[in-house]
Amino acid sequence: MKKGKWNAITDVPNVKVGHVTLDEELPNEGAIRTGVTAILPHAGNLFEQKVPAASFILNGFGKTVGLIQVDELGVLESPIMLTNTFSVAQVLQGTLDYMLAQNKTIADTTSSLNIVVGECNDSYLNSMREMKVQAHHAIEAIQQAATGPIEQGAVGAGKGMICYEVKAGIGSSSRIVSYESTTYTVGVLTLTNFGKAAECKINDWLQKNGYNQYEAIFPTREEVEKPDGSVMIIVATDAPVNERQLKRFAKRAAIGLGRTGTSVHNGSGDIIIAFSNGYTIPHSADDTTISPALLRDDHPIMNDLFLAIVEATEEAVYQSLLHAETTTGRQGRVIEKCILEKK
Amino acid sequence: MKKGKWNAITDVPNVKVGHVTLDEELPNEGAIRTGVTAILPHAGNLFEQKVPAASFILNGFGKTVGLIQVDELGVLESPIMLTNTFSVAQVLQGTLDYMLAQNKTIADTTSSLNIVVGECNDSYLNSMREMKVQAHHAIEAIQQAATGPIEQGAVGAGKGMICYEVKAGIGSSSRIVSYESTTYTVGVLTLTNFGKAAECKINDWLQKNGYNQYEAIFPTREEVEKPDGSVMIIVATDAPVNERQLKRFAKRAAIGLGRTGTSVHNGSGDIIIAFSNGYTIPHSADDTTISPALLRDDHPIMNDLFLAIVEATEEAVYQSLLHAETTTGRQGRVIEKCILEKK
Amino acid sequence: MKKGKWNAITDVPNVKVGHVTLDEELPNEGAIRTGVTAILPHAGNLFEQKVPAASFILNGFGKTVGLIQVDELGVLESPIMLTNTFSVAQVLQGTLDYMLAQNKTIADTTSSLNIVVGECNDSYLNSMREMKVQAHHAIEAIQQAATGPIEQGAVGAGKGMICYEVKAGIGSSSRIVSYESTTYTVGVLTLTNFGKAAECKINDWLQKNGYNQYEAIFPTREEVEKPDGSVMIIVATDAPVNERQLKRFAKRAAIGLGRTGTSVHNGSGDIIIAFSNGYTIPHSADDTTISPALLRDDHPIMNDLFLAIVEATEEAVYQSLLHAETTTGRQGRVIEKCILEKK
Amino acid sequence: MKKGKWNAITDVPNVKVGHVTLDEELPNEGAIRTGVTAILPHAGNLFEQKVPAASFILNGFGKTVGLIQVDELGVLESPIMLTNTFSVAQVLQGTLDYMLAQNKTIADTTSSLNIVVGECNDSYLNSMREMKVQAHHAIEAIQQAATGPIEQGAVGAGKGMICYEVKAGIGSSSRIVSYESTTYTVGVLTLTNFGKAAECKINDWLQKNGYNQYEAIFPTREEVEKPDGSVMIIVATDAPVNERQLKRFAKRAAIGLGRTGTSVHNGSGDIIIAFSNGYTIPHSADDTTISPALLRDDHPIMNDLFLAIVEATEEAVYQSLLHAETTTGRQGRVIEKCILEKK
Repeated sequence: MKKGKWNAITDVPNVKVGHVTLDEELPNEGAIRTGVTAILPHAGNLFEQKVPAASFILNGFGKTVGLIQVDELGVLESPIMLTNTFSVAQVLQGTLDYMLAQNKTIADTTSSLNIVVGECNDSYLNSMREMKVQAHHAIEAIQQAATGPIEQGAVGAGKGMICYEVKAGIGSSSRIVSYESTTYTVGVLTLTNFGKAAECKINDWLQKNGYNQYEAIFPTREEVEKPDGSVMIIVATDAPVNERQLKRFAKRAAIGLGRTGTSVHNGSGDIIIAFSNGYTIPHSADDTTISPALLRDDHPIMNDLFLAIVEATEEAVYQSLLHAETTTGRQGRVIEKCILEKK
Repeated sequence: MKKGKWNAITDVPNVKVGHVTLDEELPNEGAIRTGVTAILPHAGNLFEQKVPAASFILNGFGKTVGLIQVDELGVLESPIMLTNTFSVAQVLQGTLDYMLAQNKTIADTTSSLNIVVGECNDSYLNSMREMKVQAHHAIEAIQQAATGPIEQGAVGAGKGMICYEVKAGIGSSSRIVSYESTTYTVGVLTLTNFGKAAECKINDWLQKNGYNQYEAIFPTREEVEKPDGSVMIIVATDAPVNERQLKRFAKRAAIGLGRTGTSVHNGSGDIIIAFSNGYTIPHSADDTTISPALLRDDHPIMNDLFLAIVEATEEAVYQSLLHAETTTGRQGRVIEKCILEKK
Repeated sequence: MKKGKWNAITDVPNVKVGHVTLDEELPNEGAIRTGVTAILPHAGNLFEQKVPAASFILNGFGKTVGLIQVDELGVLESPIMLTNTFSVAQVLQGTLDYMLAQNKTIADTTSSLNIVVGECNDSYLNSMREMKVQAHHAIEAIQQAATGPIEQGAVGAGKGMICYEVKAGIGSSSRIVSYESTTYTVGVLTLTNFGKAAECKINDWLQKNGYNQYEAIFPTREEVEKPDGSVMIIVATDAPVNERQLKRFAKRAAIGLGRTGTSVHNGSGDIIIAFSNGYTIPHSADDTTISPALLRDDHPIMNDLFLAIVEATEEAVYQSLLHAETTTGRQGRVIEKCILEKK
Repeated sequence: MKKGKWNAITDVPNVKVGHVTLDEELPNEGAIRTGVTAILPHAGNLFEQKVPAASFILNGFGKTVGLIQVDELGVLESPIMLTNTFSVAQVLQGTLDYMLAQNKTIADTTSSLNIVVGECNDSYLNSMREMKVQAHHAIEAIQQAATGPIEQGAVGAGKGMICYEVKAGIGSSSRIVSYESTTYTVGVLTLTNFGKAAECKINDWLQKNGYNQYEAIFPTREEVEKPDGSVMIIVATDAPVNERQLKRFAKRAAIGLGRTGTSVHNGSGDIIIAFSNGYTIPHSADDTTISPALLRDDHPIMNDLFLAIVEATEEAVYQSLLHAETTTGRQGRVIEKCILEKK
């Protein structure tokens, strides 16, 4: 399947991504290796122009905030924020501050606001108990969000993350699906922090996906002794689908994740959030109804979209590995990157 | 059905409740009328001794934090915290601070921690955008939690809440069920912030529940123009049931809520969390298995427990009205209490 | 709230209802007291013109067929059939026969077909193990389905049902909601087979709903010793809503059910199915998209629809009692009707 | 991971499998290529000794019967039956007949009975509209069920099924997990009827799983023009886990399915049912409680069980291909098997 220009979630028109990375040494072998990543479904006011959204919980050992309302109303009305497990509160606070500053009527003359924050546990490398992420970091991540190519690997919320026992973090990929004159884009962004090296199927993937002269070399080391990690998967599309269809999309991302080798460990929070910016739903309107043109479930392009999501999710996980740099964290712990070597 | 000694959630042995109330005037007719309420399933270390738990989302227009993991693992490992919609982040932060101080190994040598925070929107009376609740208020609410009778009405998280257009907030009730030599207690605590006066069935309830010489008088006033409110319902029991059975309990609380008259408005976050402290699940153990004695679904006492939950939820909503005091909030807005008058 | 012309589910334009009743004596004190009820969302070909639909399982001790696909695709493509627990197979078979005869391409050149059959256990009065309902009875119920007033009480699938320990069965009610020039109808049909007499709140309802000179008298008898029963609730509307919104509707029906007094017993299959015929979704089409005009969630009429569903469900349950006739069943068992007596 | 003796679901002690296959020519190029498969969780009376069970719907374009009650009560009380889409009614009827004959008190002095029937659409090869499966075929499948090696491929419910455009049907596999002195078995049985040849990853699997001198050759032909198919996956284990944990197991089977290459097409009913026979739950008992010893979620063996399910599901799909024989069906349609050729 064809990829978008940047092979990133930002190939979906109007989607923006921003990172803030914290990198700081602390006394007593402490280290801050963490950050915040913001995904904006479009460039406008998200509260005023909501987008359809849904989620799927593959394994709920996670602390993602905001999905109850997404499930009830089928819409997203804030950026999707990613960070470490213990910084959810600060990122929630900062995003709330940002949105309230932008929307003076919220909780004054109109209703309240629902914010979505996802997380993974980066405490192997990062002194997560120190909670150095502050509310303003969330605001900065939103402000820095941009269209175009995105930084991947050990950056933003991905700074301290580990996947398949090598350094990972943010990965992204995209696919273009076309049918006659209709073209849609699917983009996936993953925050990867799960799995054992022995499970990883990256070399199979390299073989079949244009890198067959390369091999991914995993560092020889003892198994990383850490609790099972997690993964956040954000699926974006401009295909005009509704919240039910987006839940179907989210389930296909789980299939793509599974292809990379994981059997979804007990302690893993594997959570998928899918949205479309193919149309928006105004916060308030004089109209009684809205009439989005929704893709038919049985249109052939639907199965293409499903495949696009599987492929883009699978690749996004691998891109998080391929972009990451070896990182030294707290207690002098080193997590090496996997190296792509010519065979 | 028989009630417990305090007719409160604290009739379930070992359950503790604590409130912190914020009451402050601000410039420009602003006013802080809000707070935090903590419900502790038992007096021990909740992370070390988790309790089985489940939730039911009757209407998901709400921002409750922490239910994804409760759903996956079937356990609660923190206090249940209640506050206003925009203070979820601070209460999450404070509760995290408290739990981390108590458990030094979390996110160092053991896994991370899941905290549950529920909320309602008190922005009609409270200058909610000012976000005056701080992390330390959450800690104080936990520290002040006690067994015994509990303060109800316009207190803690209930300080600024409005139900059926009169002052409300925290309400609680309990029931005792017995079968032969077996006795269990059900306790319910509600944070009430929903409904229109015309819907309320309190007078029917008074008539049939020992107050038939009284009538609840609702103040004559225009309809309160505010967004649809919400309700948080916490169901506690010492009956030894598992997470699936607790979800059944949570659904019965929805039936009890419905009996008070609401048709569950669009903008309402109506969320029920149920736990049992009839047994605990240790965070770590050398054992391969756990063997709690679980109540059979078809035991006659199960239907009694269902009825107990319906009744206690219904009464808890009314108790939140009956205990509340007339409250003046921001912009000089006054929400009167409903008055119990002798007929 | 205003009721429709027939105070029945058939007040929703184009909805049709048909009954087949089986009433037969068997040797050894056996008796057939059962039947089939068909609800057709519209008069056309339901496979070719599907309707949006959703369900809510209040208590899943039931054997309803077909909801998995309704949940996935958000549409209903067959009549909704009701019968006794052990006749689900025959009714499924008959409905399939009917639909296949009508649609020659199913499972030949096009996809297969999903049929919805709900049930309650009428084995107290009916020799349910004899399974006298045959496939052709289902076809006849569909063929006899008509718009206009509907027969209620001990008829069709309701022939042998018992609610609140008195004779019940089929009950229906409707409400009209209007906002400016917009008018929608909500209709509910219930198959009632649950509850203990002591729980029933019909007299409160009579008092407040125009029958205040009447009292429902429940026969003096011992408690009916039977397993917990069930209830099927079908919610129809012409309001143009989608599958997510219909799930919200289904939850409000649970609130209406709860108002009648039940605490939803362990052994009860309490299942709600909601559909809209405000628009249809063609089985196949050349178009890539469909564009139904969908009611906004925050439109004031939405809360009116919620209330309409609560009220119509509550009344439909009572109508099933008020229309039923005293019935003698197997082993000479008699279930009396409740009598409306002038006070 | 180690496999069981038969590499089949019957490696889980006491699990039994039985097939009835229908193979008959009809006039006008019609052909019956279908059947029934029965999976019995143990050799005893399943109604009297229920087993814990759960399901996960990966894609709900399917007509499986019985999962609502499994979800509510967490138990299975009948065999799991598999057949074609339009024979669900007859198989439901036959299984009901069988169970009623075995249990005289059902629906007389005790409650009713929940039966689980899954299906896939075999209408490409089978004249499914003719509905030749009769109730007695279901009874025969149950009666023929046995422990030990099981017949796979184009047999029983798998007779007419097609997977990845080659002949498939029933496939099974098992894994043994051990930790210190504890040993559990996981067995999976699949009814496969989905996917496009181009998606299938069987050759990657052969390469890594001891068949690296072989290659699976897919017949050269035009794409099979048929609606998207489905898959039923049955996961059995003797590990003592509860219904919540079994839902986690079911989700891992979805990961295993995804590994075989499918992106889970729109029209596919991909449904997973998991049960444990590590303990049973008696239908009736004088005891107030039950006390099964349940595996801790965080025990290391849990992740091994997850992996075992992923691997066994993946292999079971492939075994359904490897065991199947080329089959000619209605309208002279031929579906060839894929051939394992020495490289």
